[in-house]
Amino acid sequence: MAPALELLEKPIENLPVKTFSANGNGAAVAGLKLESPERHQRVMNVFRAFIADLCQQYGEGHAGSPMGMAAIGIALYKYVMKYSPRNCNYFNRDRFVLSNGHACLWQYLFMHLVGVNSMTLEQLKSYHSARIDSVCPGHPEIENEGIEVTTGPLGQGLANAVGLAMATKNLAATYNKPGYELVNNMTWCMVGDACLQEGVGLEALSLAGHWKLNNLCVIFDNNSVTCDGTADVANTEDVNMKMRATGFNVVDVYNGDSDVAAVVNSLVAARSSDKPTFINIRTTIGFGSAIAGTADVHGAALGVDEVANVKRSFGLDPNQHFHIPQDVYDFFADIPGRGKAHEVGWQVALERYRERDPALAAEFTLRVAGKLPEDWTKCIPRKEDQPIAPTASRKSAGVVTNALGERINSFLVGTADLTPSCNVAYKNKVDFQSPGLRTACGLNGNYSGRYIHYGIREHAMCAITNGLAAFNKGTFIPMTSTYFVFHLYAAAAVRMAALQGLQQIHIATHDSIGVGENGPTHQPIAVAALYRALPNTLYIRPCDAEEVAGSYIAAIQATETPTIISLSRQSLTQYPQYSSREGTLKGAYVFNEAEGDDFDVTLIGVGSEMCFTMQTRGLLLRDYGIRARVVSFPCTRLFEQQSREYKQSVLKPRAGKPTVVIEAFPSNGWERYADASVSMNSFGKSLPSKEIYEHFGFTPEKIAPKVKDLVEDVRRDGIGILRGDFRDLNGCLRIGFEH
Amino acid sequence: MAPALELLEKPIENLPVKTFSANGNGAAVAGLKLESPERHQRVMNVFRAFIADLCQQYGEGHAGSPMGMAAIGIALYKYVMKYSPRNCNYFNRDRFVLSNGHACLWQYLFMHLVGVNSMTLEQLKSYHSARIDSVCPGHPEIENEGIEVTTGPLGQGLANAVGLAMATKNLAATYNKPGYELVNNMTWCMVGDACLQEGVGLEALSLAGHWKLNNLCVIFDNNSVTCDGTADVANTEDVNMKMRATGFNVVDVYNGDSDVAAVVNSLVAARSSDKPTFINIRTTIGFGSAIAGTADVHGAALGVDEVANVKRSFGLDPNQHFHIPQDVYDFFADIPGRGKAHEVGWQVALERYRERDPALAAEFTLRVAGKLPEDWTKCIPRKEDQPIAPTASRKSAGVVTNALGERINSFLVGTADLTPSCNVAYKNKVDFQSPGLRTACGLNGNYSGRYIHYGIREHAMCAITNGLAAFNKGTFIPMTSTYFVFHLYAAAAVRMAALQGLQQIHIATHDSIGVGENGPTHQPIAVAALYRALPNTLYIRPCDAEEVAGSYIAAIQATETPTIISLSRQSLTQYPQYSSREGTLKGAYVFNEAEGDDFDVTLIGVGSEMCFTMQTRGLLLRDYGIRARVVSFPCTRLFEQQSREYKQSVLKPRAGKPTVVIEAFPSNGWERYADASVSMNSFGKSLPSKEIYEHFGFTPEKIAPKVKDLVEDVRRDGIGILRGDFRDLNGCLRIGFEH
Repeated sequence: MAPALELLEKPIENLPVKTFSANGNGAAVAGLKLESPERHQRVMNVFRAFIADLCQQYGEGHAGSPMGMAAIGIALYKYVMKYSPRNCNYFNRDRFVLSNGHACLWQYLFMHLVGVNSMTLEQLKSYHSARIDSVCPGHPEIENEGIEVTTGPLGQGLANAVGLAMATKNLAATYNKPGYELVNNMTWCMVGDACLQEGVGLEALSLAGHWKLNNLCVIFDNNSVTCDGTADVANTEDVNMKMRATGFNVVDVYNGDSDVAAVVNSLVAARSSDKPTFINIRTTIGFGSAIAGTADVHGAALGVDEVANVKRSFGLDPNQHFHIPQDVYDFFADIPGRGKAHEVGWQVALERYRERDPALAAEFTLRVAGKLPEDWTKCIPRKEDQPIAPTASRKSAGVVTNALGERINSFLVGTADLTPSCNVAYKNKVDFQSPGLRTACGLNGNYSGRYIHYGIREHAMCAITNGLAAFNKGTFIPMTSTYFVFHLYAAAAVRMAALQGLQQIHIATHDSIGVGENGPTHQPIAVAALYRALPNTLYIRPCDAEEVAGSYIAAIQATETPTIISLSRQSLTQYPQYSSREGTLKGAYVFNEAEGDDFDVTLIGVGSEMCFTMQTRGLLLRDYGIRARVVSFPCTRLFEQQSREYKQSVLKPRAGKPTVVIEAFPSNGWERYADASVSMNSFGKSLPSKEIYEHFGFTPEKIAPKVKDLVEDVRRDGIGILRGDFRDLNGCLRIGFEH
Repeated sequence: MAPALELLEKPIENLPVKTFSANGNGAAVAGLKLESPERHQRVMNVFRAFIADLCQQYGEGHAGSPMGMAAIGIALYKYVMKYSPRNCNYFNRDRFVLSNGHACLWQYLFMHLVGVNSMTLEQLKSYHSARIDSVCPGHPEIENEGIEVTTGPLGQGLANAVGLAMATKNLAATYNKPGYELVNNMTWCMVGDACLQEGVGLEALSLAGHWKLNNLCVIFDNNSVTCDGTADVANTEDVNMKMRATGFNVVDVYNGDSDVAAVVNSLVAARSSDKPTFINIRTTIGFGSAIAGTADVHGAALGVDEVANVKRSFGLDPNQHFHIPQDVYDFFADIPGRGKAHEVGWQVALERYRERDPALAAEFTLRVAGKLPEDWTKCIPRKEDQPIAPTASRKSAGVVTNALGERINSFLVGTADLTPSCNVAYKNKVDFQSPGLRTACGLNGNYSGRYIHYGIREHAMCAITNGLAAFNKGTFIPMTSTYFVFHLYAAAAVRMAALQGLQQIHIATHDSIGVGENGPTHQPIAVAALYRALPNTLYIRPCDAEEVAGSYIAAIQATETPTIISLSRQSLTQYPQYSSREGTLKGAYVFNEAEGDDFDVTLIGVGSEMCFTMQTRGLLLRDYGIRARVVSFPCTRLFEQQSREYKQSVLKPRAGKPTVVIEAFPSNGWERYADASVSMNSFGKSLPSKEIYEHFGFTPEKIAPKVKDLVEDVRRDGIGILRGDFRDLNGCLRIGFEH
């Protein structure tokens, strides 16, 4: 017998056919043979009892949603989803995202039942335990077999799913040829009430509808219960109407607690929709328990007695714990074989494809392996070709972005509606759009397009980017662009990228008070403090075009890390004789040593404030005879990865010779490297670029006397400066020390 | 003649009545006498030409939207809005929010025309200038007369408007009596495409619909153009259907460029709707210019020739600049008088109310003055009543939150669907809900309710909170609650609160890796680094119930500042003999001096990691004879406000005696106060609370030997530690120094 799942794509006529009407819309889809409702009920009973046992074990966890979603799981894992449990990374698998990540036990238990290797019975029981190598953490984690993305923070997974579906569309449009479909997987995304309330989810849904991602199916576990009570405490909108308005095909399933057939039918229908599909499935949270349908069963164990009652009500032995009878295993026994058939089929297709079009196949295979073509390095301007005249770093970055975007299919360049400001549109770009779109301004595209208009949706942009990067690590290197201040809108998504080790490049322009007249709302005070502290994140703030080149090299080499390249709106002095891409890759480097053999002070210059640093160096020597050396410090994270010797050689920490950092951000974090700062202690102001720097004391004329005073203070005191005495030269936050 | 605006609330029959049908829905509203279409056209021509001149002056700025919105402005400022230009803060004024803040020239120019005192012709011309005292910054700022909230970051203003409308509803339900309406203002919110794309806007709209805020009218400047082209490049949803699904009354206006009457009619209809109203007004961006209707006119000046062309097309003299003829001033000449009548009417009503109900009037008047009743201090538990047994700080905070919520009408306590986890529900709470709501779980309410279910919408929760706080500073002190990690979702809104000086209290629970099994997605690594760096923000992390009490006192005393109180999920040891609310108010204080007269090391303890710090102190003495003193450091911002002498007395920085901070966050920022840290350099892990602290090295047994090594190193080297040598005792990020 042919693997049943293939039937979903191409019904074979001589197989027994059973038709189910998806309740409410009457659509009928043929081609699947289902087991009997009684057998489904039996599997669900065992499943729900097992969930209750798992949460009862440690007296906590989320039992409600997993119990409610049992029928949905059977429909997906037994009938509809295309995957291979013995090889979860099979390339053309359907992607599944549990956006309501707290329901992870549901996924873990189904993974166990269908035979995912690592998901043993022992591992299942490690949920909420102290087991250090558990593959069953409290929310699904990408590091574990069979998990596409880490979920938990609500709404993120839904946006990730949109990214995963885009990835499929883009690969299919780029590589599939008639008769040679290498990529045609679906993306299934399970959501609860919360994902449909969170803004990031709503933004992503708008885009999925706009792009007509018909390979995306959003499955709404509509149990109508949240932590605070029934969902109508905070939400009474007409979700179906809203989803239709957003461009989705909407299907209702009214008995999601037990009508497996209706769920299957709705899922199968999603495969042939011309729009993304939203399936509104009514379920009962904690189904089978006496407190089913209430908030009490959302995030808690049921209690010993209630677990026993659940089992009794299902006709199971209340004294048997963690019990999965053989007939339940048998129910899923065909899955590994079907999965293997998918794998083999795909390998055969790839071989045929290779014969037909070896060049495209080679590119595709390279991307499947998660690798870039080596000539990406040619997209980075050579040092000798860099500009000498003052240039905004957003422009310098645009040169690199455009070359990468134009030449290498792995790069997807996106923008949150700031194409003209972020300089990201490249020559001959094709927009990623539904092929049928006809915009009023004539800016159309198709799914092979790699230039993405995300609209004014920074959070979804970055969360979708996570899905693109997670599709198959390395197949895509997504790039985003917006003003740096709006990375605060997107912070929760960038954090998820860092947590998951997802490579991506965020082009963050307008990164200082130098944005000028747009005023304090657009001047990103304190945003850098977040990204410098965020683990596994490169926040790089280059001072000129050469450091911009280094920033891109660092970002492309950081294959398990998101990078934010922080860029100026305004023109910046170029330092061809001092700036260095190699230095940038080390995070910090000696930019300009002091005149003569010795020095009096080290100045740290960063990004768009480097010009003031260099000018201060000159003024200190001319007016006070003070010899200042200058360190450029584009990235604290990269610097921390260097050897102790290198760090010493750059910072030259010596008693009596203070270090001053000059950056128009708060000083937080710089205290590690500097004794004093010229920094920002307040929000900015709506003034032109030149005047705002003056207003906040960022001119060499204002900085140099302050540095002179500091140097004299330190000379007079005769010792180095101790911690607790960091000096804010722009403010009055100085505290003293005793000696 | 009675002031025309009163007619909007109560039509008077003997006045001339002209009826206009709001295009598309046929509704007819009586009671307003409009000027002739020709006169409207004349005013719009002058208005648009003036906008073009203003942007041309410095060759930049946003001209397009203001020119497109001229008719809307006449409808609002001349006919519909209830306000007093000579006293913009008149309490019962209609609130107006320009959520598309880049269109601020539109608001500035109308404010000038209607006679707002500070908005002189000279000030108007300061837009994009270097004028330091300009009241015309690049986006509207709350500090300036007549501006309700600072806008610019898109979507924020829309959510603020929802908060402003809630404030009215709550005050009205609390204080209005039949025949004595003290508060009945409308909130008008202008939005562009972006505000309807941003997640924070979408979240807020869902809530406005759910709450049936019929005093809110969202006016959509539907010019269909964004920076990247026409809006359909990234958005093709059916916005009207979506808004209806969200619970709005939807009205169309098809000729928003010139049909003032239709706009007026739609606005008037909004006043009598039983739901919030969404008016979809089609306009042409840059109306009157040859590049009208394109992205080119969004964020740029038109150019000298095009400005001249605009004037010619309007029959104006192209050589006259910044010209407002007297007849245009005359058009608005009745506004100040009408405004004065509003003010007087309200004062009379308040006097009558005072006679009728002096007690309620006194409370109302106190709140109008922005003051709390003095007995708020009774809501803070006395030191002697604090718990001694281990208590989670979220529970200690709950005691205070509940007392404040229960007893003082100024406090609005909200939650992003985490009532049970955040301990914020107080006795006899009444939910803020539409009085007609009947939820399935029986949790109903009315508009006098002060407990707010925001749903799973952290960003909108905090942005709405900004509107509540801005309604009339001090009238409300809104409180929010969610897990600390989700303050990353809300960061852009909290930043706007800090920028605007809006008092609010954010109850941020589950603030450490101690949240345990929920895993790394829920463990807020690096979030504190953001809030400690954010200007004008108090991030307070108390270690026990007494410090919790101090945190609330600090938050309530900080009348121009948002406060985040960062709280544990897990039980914390209480330190009644050491902890102090007075110390907390100073940001840091000596918690436990070393045994004997001298000390060897200072340990900084923070929040839920204080227990490890105190235990380490004991172990150091017992096992190594090392005398450690302990400093508690709940708030860096408050500490920076103390005197130099106080800071010295707390930190006691002395050569040879290192300071070590112990906190399960990245060390960023602590380098200012400490020489070394026991901190987190990675994301967390899904493990129970006890085990996760062990896993990451947070046990006295693991910390004490590291501190001992540090103390010995410093003794051996014989000097203090210089910058550049901060030691991460949990990692290997140590760098050295020369001496």
